[in-house]
Amino acid sequence: MAAEWRVYLSGEIHTDWRHEIAEGTKAAGLDIAYSAPVTDHGASDDCGVAILGAEPDKFWHDRKGAGVNAIRTRTLIEKADVVVVRFGDKYKQWNAAFDAGYAAALGKPLIILHPPEHAHALKEVDEAASAVAQTPAQVVEILRYVIRGELPDRQRAAAE
Amino acid sequence: MAAEWRVYLSGEIHTDWRHEIAEGTKAAGLDIAYSAPVTDHGASDDCGVAILGAEPDKFWHDRKGAGVNAIRTRTLIEKADVVVVRFGDKYKQWNAAFDAGYAAALGKPLIILHPPEHAHALKEVDEAASAVAQTPAQVVEILRYVIRGELPDRQRAAAE
Amino acid sequence: MAAEWRVYLSGEIHTDWRHEIAEGTKAAGLDIAYSAPVTDHGASDDCGVAILGAEPDKFWHDRKGAGVNAIRTRTLIEKADVVVVRFGDKYKQWNAAFDAGYAAALGKPLIILHPPEHAHALKEVDEAASAVAQTPAQVVEILRYVIRGELPDRQRAAAE
Amino acid sequence: MAAEWRVYLSGEIHTDWRHEIAEGTKAAGLDIAYSAPVTDHGASDDCGVAILGAEPDKFWHDRKGAGVNAIRTRTLIEKADVVVVRFGDKYKQWNAAFDAGYAAALGKPLIILHPPEHAHALKEVDEAASAVAQTPAQVVEILRYVIRGELPDRQRAAAE
Amino acid sequence: MAAEWRVYLSGEIHTDWRHEIAEGTKAAGLDIAYSAPVTDHGASDDCGVAILGAEPDKFWHDRKGAGVNAIRTRTLIEKADVVVVRFGDKYKQWNAAFDAGYAAALGKPLIILHPPEHAHALKEVDEAASAVAQTPAQVVEILRYVIRGELPDRQRAAAE
Amino acid sequence: MAAEWRVYLSGEIHTDWRHEIAEGTKAAGLDIAYSAPVTDHGASDDCGVAILGAEPDKFWHDRKGAGVNAIRTRTLIEKADVVVVRFGDKYKQWNAAFDAGYAAALGKPLIILHPPEHAHALKEVDEAASAVAQTPAQVVEILRYVIRGELPDRQRAAAE
Amino acid sequence: MAAEWRVYLSGEIHTDWRHEIAEGTKAAGLDIAYSAPVTDHGASDDCGVAILGAEPDKFWHDRKGAGVNAIRTRTLIEKADVVVVRFGDKYKQWNAAFDAGYAAALGKPLIILHPPEHAHALKEVDEAASAVAQTPAQVVEILRYVIRGELPDRQRAAAE
Amino acid sequence: MAAEWRVYLSGEIHTDWRHEIAEGTKAAGLDIAYSAPVTDHGASDDCGVAILGAEPDKFWHDRKGAGVNAIRTRTLIEKADVVVVRFGDKYKQWNAAFDAGYAAALGKPLIILHPPEHAHALKEVDEAASAVAQTPAQVVEILRYVIRGELPDRQRAAAE
Repeated sequence: MAAEWRVYLSGEIHTDWRHEIAEGTKAAGLDIAYSAPVTDHGASDDCGVAILGAEPDKFWHDRKGAGVNAIRTRTLIEKADVVVVRFGDKYKQWNAAFDAGYAAALGKPLIILHPPEHAHALKEVDEAASAVAQTPAQVVEILRYVIRGELPDRQRAAAE
Repeated sequence: MAAEWRVYLSGEIHTDWRHEIAEGTKAAGLDIAYSAPVTDHGASDDCGVAILGAEPDKFWHDRKGAGVNAIRTRTLIEKADVVVVRFGDKYKQWNAAFDAGYAAALGKPLIILHPPEHAHALKEVDEAASAVAQTPAQVVEILRYVIRGELPDRQRAAAE
Repeated sequence: MAAEWRVYLSGEIHTDWRHEIAEGTKAAGLDIAYSAPVTDHGASDDCGVAILGAEPDKFWHDRKGAGVNAIRTRTLIEKADVVVVRFGDKYKQWNAAFDAGYAAALGKPLIILHPPEHAHALKEVDEAASAVAQTPAQVVEILRYVIRGELPDRQRAAAE
Repeated sequence: MAAEWRVYLSGEIHTDWRHEIAEGTKAAGLDIAYSAPVTDHGASDDCGVAILGAEPDKFWHDRKGAGVNAIRTRTLIEKADVVVVRFGDKYKQWNAAFDAGYAAALGKPLIILHPPEHAHALKEVDEAASAVAQTPAQVVEILRYVIRGELPDRQRAAAE
Repeated sequence: MAAEWRVYLSGEIHTDWRHEIAEGTKAAGLDIAYSAPVTDHGASDDCGVAILGAEPDKFWHDRKGAGVNAIRTRTLIEKADVVVVRFGDKYKQWNAAFDAGYAAALGKPLIILHPPEHAHALKEVDEAASAVAQTPAQVVEILRYVIRGELPDRQRAAAE
Repeated sequence: MAAEWRVYLSGEIHTDWRHEIAEGTKAAGLDIAYSAPVTDHGASDDCGVAILGAEPDKFWHDRKGAGVNAIRTRTLIEKADVVVVRFGDKYKQWNAAFDAGYAAALGKPLIILHPPEHAHALKEVDEAASAVAQTPAQVVEILRYVIRGELPDRQRAAAE
Repeated sequence: MAAEWRVYLSGEIHTDWRHEIAEGTKAAGLDIAYSAPVTDHGASDDCGVAILGAEPDKFWHDRKGAGVNAIRTRTLIEKADVVVVRFGDKYKQWNAAFDAGYAAALGKPLIILHPPEHAHALKEVDEAASAVAQTPAQVVEILRYVIRGELPDRQRAAAE
Repeated sequence: MAAEWRVYLSGEIHTDWRHEIAEGTKAAGLDIAYSAPVTDHGASDDCGVAILGAEPDKFWHDRKGAGVNAIRTRTLIEKADVVVVRFGDKYKQWNAAFDAGYAAALGKPLIILHPPEHAHALKEVDEAASAVAQTPAQVVEILRYVIRGELPDRQRAAAE
């Protein structure tokens, strides 16, 4: 029972967790189309003014960029079958939580990925999720199980 | 008038009715993409803890697994054109009835498949269905008619 | 600007208007995926009992068949980009008007096709339509214009 | 458990079935807000031109009126909890079938009211309905049961 | 911050849990409009034939009744802010699970109420719920907290 | 042109900004029904276990509470006409950002309230908002203008 | 059959057409709740900066105001049963056409009000409308007919 | 992360801005499926009567054409991921503003393209947009960034 899945990877952009997940599912032979926000921090901050002209006021500098980024992020979240949101160690990451809320209201299954020390602060976000993982490897296993019905130590296709 | 149909097969997992339907429509030359829950009972029960870590409390053990399974089942039900739900002889099968309600609220055409002795207990579920069948062979015939316009004893393509 | 269009052809099943439209758009080089109800009147009436077992009461005989047909018709109407509904000279054709109302509530663009003498009786249906045609050839021209931007006497692609 | 119900009465306008239902549920002490199309046939036909100016072409005369009537009918159908559609003995009544399809696509519970001789011609419409009645008195009883849980010969409030 | 809440109480109809919840929230001074299916088992089974005429075949006897009941249950579930579904000790209760699935797909917050021994069989249903309770008294407390912000042992209004 | 508005006040719970806004619009004579999450931090954290039983694992302690709180917060956000989200100086406040994303996906007009130093970190959230304010007094003025058409220094009703 | 209707009056703000319509329906005894954008041109232009602080760049001055106005206009359009959009003689009036498109996509019945000389330029907008009027008095008559079933020269309640 | 994007180009039809954008993104190697209204002004005006028969009254001549055009425009807007609306120097362009409102209500990301002198008149439309551009080249850069994460002067793929 073949299935093509689209997975959006939202949140933290300073580690290579997206790569890790993509490599992991590729190694497992899964056919997943990943999407994500632009992960070049500088480009993401400056895209608005770089394309549409400079703004002396930082607030509107940011607004212009956020508008352009939203074209990408909201379109891809709406096209996704599953949304994974990772919260890292640094920064406020309010856009990650915003994406989680946005995806939840659209009825998208959510996988939240964060270190255990953020559990209490993320309890409302975790509650809206279908799964809460701590490592990219766990996300790989969730996707493998969800798409193929295979579990880590069993290696047998359960869902044919 | 070619059509690609997606059919989700929900419910009972202890007989090979899914295989029977898939073989039947394949033999009839139909192009149907089937999907289903993970039908390995053990994998379905333990997927949460196998991937995300053990839980001492059975309630949360079950919750973790149910969350992971829901990523699969709800996504595939939402993508389906038709949802078939089979009620077998054993177990409570509340998840089957839940899927039927879920699919009904999404406006998916439902085919309910059950032995005649369950008819009274399933009357609300059957009422929400477009067809109530007793055998996988009948489901095959429904799908053949719906997609091709062919009836069992007529063998002629009615809908060209 | 290529576009694949899906057109559902609802209503009257006793003349070959569907064939006429399909041939017309094919001759014009349009890429349209047509769908329709099962147009074999006898099959459409008897599909329920032929597959699911005889009913002594004609009302339930009809109900069984109507349920099976609805799996096809509603699924295909929901997948269609445009719904064409033809009212012919005979019968009550309430299912055609039902389909028109169903499609209208889903926001599907409607083309209603009927002889001029039905205009007053169909005024509410026509009002919900984007176009009211009298001949299949007009429907062909509408589809050609809508998809390619070509008009009958102009033969030039307006929308590239 | 008090409930205010809104019921839209669509279809045939030449007998006093609406009055009969309204009187019946009033006598039963039910609190129902009824709505309906304009049932003055002449007014319904001419409202467009009477307000917005004459049209020499009957087709556009009808279109203008149908547009004005649609403001009323679609708004009230969308506000209704239940839609009753009556098919009478005369006329094409395509607007009644259109309303039924429109309401069905909006997910409104439908009660279809028609004499038994129309059963075959209305089989698709009946299939989309929650109940098929033959008399206004039956519709009164359905509404009484649905709102109060009372059955004709039992007279006891079942649903408190 | 006053709020009027509507709560639908689905499921088991052989104990007085609905009464218990309604009394409990009334004692707590909450303003809740409760709704429910018809809880007179006999009336619920026979409403179709009692109003619309007898059916010799039990299957269609049930279908007629289920259609009439669905007018009530689906309308009230769609109007509800919160849906409580109770699973008792007896019967298949597939309609309860169906209601839970239906409400979940509509995005209604679910409270599932069942004895602990049903936990494993209900794991998919529980996973879709915002809360899983074991006693009507707990449901009362949940509603009190949700509407007023008051907890059992604190007695102070938290949400002014 | 009277209007009853419902405004949900999400986010920071350690200052009395909600009271300030409510008092301000009351003083201005506006008729607004405010709603909010439970703002007693301790109650909000412990409501799950206080009602449904203790959990040894903090993660499930939090999950139980978050589920109960979500019944309140999502219901009230969905009923609101306008959602105001305040970000304060402390804590991660991911639930505030989650609420903003949730409300945005539902199409609710958003007013974001935060001190200027959070502007860059909140740029995606601000972009989704109709207005970004720095003080509760500004929110009062926005609501006064939106409902009455009155501006601070003009004091004249513009929208009669 | 009493009905409370909500009508949004969009577009041109330099003549007293809103007052004329409101007076007309009041004189006819209709119970209509009207809503509208803020019609004080200066207030509408400056509301953003008056409340949230000055902007040196006119573009952002306008953006701030447009955001605040959108809270009002979109909320009220979504709550309306019918949307009337008037195009006057002056200005670009793109916001009026925007409102018409917005209301059309939400499925709101539209009445477009404009002098005959704008007919060609407004043909796409008029096509999306249920009625096209030239005078406020005609809008009064449409609303009277739609709500009461009364026509100008007939004075009889058709829809009781 | 491959993505196929569909972009609808609405509005002004007298310059070759659509061609310019399509060429620009093609040169950048982007895979975009563009769609647009029929841009042959004469064909667009006359399509209704050319296909469905002449109308003596210009109003209905226009209505017939607008209906046929709407089949194309609304279908393509609904299929689009992004909608670009250009306002030029001439004409009322109310259909462009209508399309913008229509797309906004559907939740489509909007890019508005107009010369700076129209900024004040378009402030409500611009406010609903994710980006406001002045040149087709800027739209090309926005699409390149949104799809590939590349900025004009950086030339590096940020989003792999």
